[in-house]
Amino acid sequence: MRNLTLLTDFYELTMMYGYFRQNKTDEIATFDLFFRPFDESNFCIAAGLEQAIEYVENLHFDQTDIDYLRSTKAFDEDFLAYLANFRFTGSIRAVPEGTVVFPYEPLMIVTAPISQAQLIEAALLNIVNHQTLIATKARRVCYAAEPASVLEFGLRRAQGPDAAIYGARAAVIGGCSSTSNVLCAQMFGLPPKGTHAHSWVMSFPTELDAFMAYADTYPDNCLLLVDTYDTLGSGVPNAIKTFDYLKSKGYQPIGIRLDSGDLAYLSKQARKMMDAAGHADCKIFASSDIDEYVLESLKQQGAKIDIYGVGTRLITSNNTPSLGGVYKLCNIRTGEKDCPKMKISDNPIKMTNPGVKTVFRLFDKKTDKAIADVIALKGERIDETKPLTITHPVERWKSKEVSDFYAKELYVDAVKDGKRVLARKDVYTLQRDCAQSLNGFWEEYKRLSNPHVYKVDLSDKLYSLKQQLINDERKTVAK
Amino acid sequence: MRNLTLLTDFYELTMMYGYFRQNKTDEIATFDLFFRPFDESNFCIAAGLEQAIEYVENLHFDQTDIDYLRSTKAFDEDFLAYLANFRFTGSIRAVPEGTVVFPYEPLMIVTAPISQAQLIEAALLNIVNHQTLIATKARRVCYAAEPASVLEFGLRRAQGPDAAIYGARAAVIGGCSSTSNVLCAQMFGLPPKGTHAHSWVMSFPTELDAFMAYADTYPDNCLLLVDTYDTLGSGVPNAIKTFDYLKSKGYQPIGIRLDSGDLAYLSKQARKMMDAAGHADCKIFASSDIDEYVLESLKQQGAKIDIYGVGTRLITSNNTPSLGGVYKLCNIRTGEKDCPKMKISDNPIKMTNPGVKTVFRLFDKKTDKAIADVIALKGERIDETKPLTITHPVERWKSKEVSDFYAKELYVDAVKDGKRVLARKDVYTLQRDCAQSLNGFWEEYKRLSNPHVYKVDLSDKLYSLKQQLINDERKTVAK
Repeated sequence: MRNLTLLTDFYELTMMYGYFRQNKTDEIATFDLFFRPFDESNFCIAAGLEQAIEYVENLHFDQTDIDYLRSTKAFDEDFLAYLANFRFTGSIRAVPEGTVVFPYEPLMIVTAPISQAQLIEAALLNIVNHQTLIATKARRVCYAAEPASVLEFGLRRAQGPDAAIYGARAAVIGGCSSTSNVLCAQMFGLPPKGTHAHSWVMSFPTELDAFMAYADTYPDNCLLLVDTYDTLGSGVPNAIKTFDYLKSKGYQPIGIRLDSGDLAYLSKQARKMMDAAGHADCKIFASSDIDEYVLESLKQQGAKIDIYGVGTRLITSNNTPSLGGVYKLCNIRTGEKDCPKMKISDNPIKMTNPGVKTVFRLFDKKTDKAIADVIALKGERIDETKPLTITHPVERWKSKEVSDFYAKELYVDAVKDGKRVLARKDVYTLQRDCAQSLNGFWEEYKRLSNPHVYKVDLSDKLYSLKQQLINDERKTVAK
Repeated sequence: MRNLTLLTDFYELTMMYGYFRQNKTDEIATFDLFFRPFDESNFCIAAGLEQAIEYVENLHFDQTDIDYLRSTKAFDEDFLAYLANFRFTGSIRAVPEGTVVFPYEPLMIVTAPISQAQLIEAALLNIVNHQTLIATKARRVCYAAEPASVLEFGLRRAQGPDAAIYGARAAVIGGCSSTSNVLCAQMFGLPPKGTHAHSWVMSFPTELDAFMAYADTYPDNCLLLVDTYDTLGSGVPNAIKTFDYLKSKGYQPIGIRLDSGDLAYLSKQARKMMDAAGHADCKIFASSDIDEYVLESLKQQGAKIDIYGVGTRLITSNNTPSLGGVYKLCNIRTGEKDCPKMKISDNPIKMTNPGVKTVFRLFDKKTDKAIADVIALKGERIDETKPLTITHPVERWKSKEVSDFYAKELYVDAVKDGKRVLARKDVYTLQRDCAQSLNGFWEEYKRLSNPHVYKVDLSDKLYSLKQQLINDERKTVAK
């Protein structure tokens, strides 16, 4: 396993050194990892927890790391000796992968000696921001493609090897049926997908020679790319000849792939041509700069496409290529005393929620659909027997009363005392968990444009604590 | 070193198997890796060659890879035995990292047995698309920031660990002075940069306590983040008190960092406050959702910022998060016979240039500034003693005659017979190479909005070959 311990911002190390020099290393801090309202989506699909756990379990400074840090001349020998024995001994509670999660709800809650919690900030954000971004995009793409399925094809346009590997993993959690990326498939037990490229066709004297050679190689898995020269003029007719040949030998061909041109028009024409030739059982795959908006348009035009290969725009989350997840201090415990912390800002969107928290999701007892989420202080309970008033977290004059509900807490223990306590799940299990989490929401929250805004309230206790800290701070600044 | 051999699309392996079964494995193919016209920029900054060389040198299928491929049931034992002995034995000519390169000019030209050349397609594209994208974005950001310098701060928002590490490398090639990413700094010999976060301030009873503690820890490297509570109301005044203290002890503080709010206004006010307090020698750093457009606006407003930290929008190339680089077959040699290949398309933008090629950059003898590029067939020479007519590659009626020029070929040998032949260069050397390449172009080509379109012509020989292949193909399809 790669040692990613130095995958951190330098200021995490200079702060650790500062805490060390100030004898604050062992104060117990709690940080929330959460995102603020997000351009494209009402909600995100949590992903990346598995790699985050592997990362914290494996944290250690090798001798080469220590030597390197010495060479920066920013630290003394006592601190380097402390780093040589450094391990993560803290705890992480987290929203499980595949769960629908809303702005301000912590995806992870890290409680650890402040130096440890600080060191892991940048890598945790990197891992969780990336995978959550791509799982969220995949959810949108797969939602738009239904009932067609979606294959992840983005390796060549991903932002480096990890973006391809872990992006494809996240895409499958979000709903993609598999990936073309062989390394990702190997690592996560997925069936790798793909057939041939234009270069295969171009390397033979004619397109038909290329198709026949491919059919001979994969008679029972024959999917032909038909747009190298002229999709309807040569590609589809040559594919039909090849399928005739395969069927005469007793094989069932898979179908054709369109990779350029007007996919709506070409798919409808190709469907007619294949049906007329007795190949109604052959499928049409399509790829070429597809995203959720293209998919909605193709559906509206009645495109005849069974399976989509989605590359660039999914693997980079084209319209919004970053999730602005942040990692904010919310509590410091010194000895027995908890001291809730928050970032005060002129911009209410940048204010954080103080204290060690949890989140309840309230479901209607009759429909099992989610009604609202409540961010509360850890240890709070929600009384399911009484009506509950949900108040808008910023616009406090807006409220509604809910009853006949049950409440579920969103968190699981992922790491305790530095050790993994959450069992590994395979990626298709996480995909099913995701489908189940999504199934708990009405379509109005899931549509792609202008979704209905889901209510995320603060508990009365948390709201009061926040107001109190803001007032305390005002008094301090006034002095 | 990580084994990235399976970082490939499955169809590369199924095609390899097809070539193997067709006894075509040893036909010598040449592929061009190039990009088509790009949203944001007239040109790109080539990057990623170093990692591409490492990747092809290290290509090999481990026993676990072979076992895994066997488990897919897509290949026979003869082919798996062939893979077990597989090495890359081909050659790569490439545009050196840091070079200005235009659409359709191959960044890399791979010549190898077709199976080998095919296998490496996806990973080469992944590596080169990513780093070229980020180096290009960094060039734009640094161009807009001048004379202020730019630090790369994007680890937490990058698309996974590699996107952060290699993205930061590419950002430095494109002009960033360094990075906050410690692992990248260690790997590539850069000085890691950073001081402290809001959490440092929040972990102390008061902001001034936090500043003083930081000053005690780093008296000769004290840069204070002033926006945790109230930038002008408490942050800057507390920083001034801390700087007074440091100077009284004989230390020179570095300055302050602004990380939120109206950077133009706050920087001007903070500059006045620090100047009035006798700290005109302290610098102002700024970060917060910065890109080249924000930088142009800040410059216009007279912001007083000395150094920028640029994160999210640089490390993800926010506006255009992928470079659409492609890898297209341009020649097959069977025995002694070269057979130039091209992709024919209804869309002229998707047509490729056939044959094994090179690119000449023509410079004006008086100014040493570039006049035009000419894509030619390999082996062609340009006669510098005669005037040359440059013709628009698509709009053929547009032409101009150039004289008093000298021509430079863009390529170096990177890999020969499977072995690296290009010496490693450190990243700051590549940064200087980039600055030198940029220096060869007039400002009109480098401005950020509506840059003047640079002329890239095809040589007469290449143009004729292309027309001939298009005509041949028309005849074939007509039959």
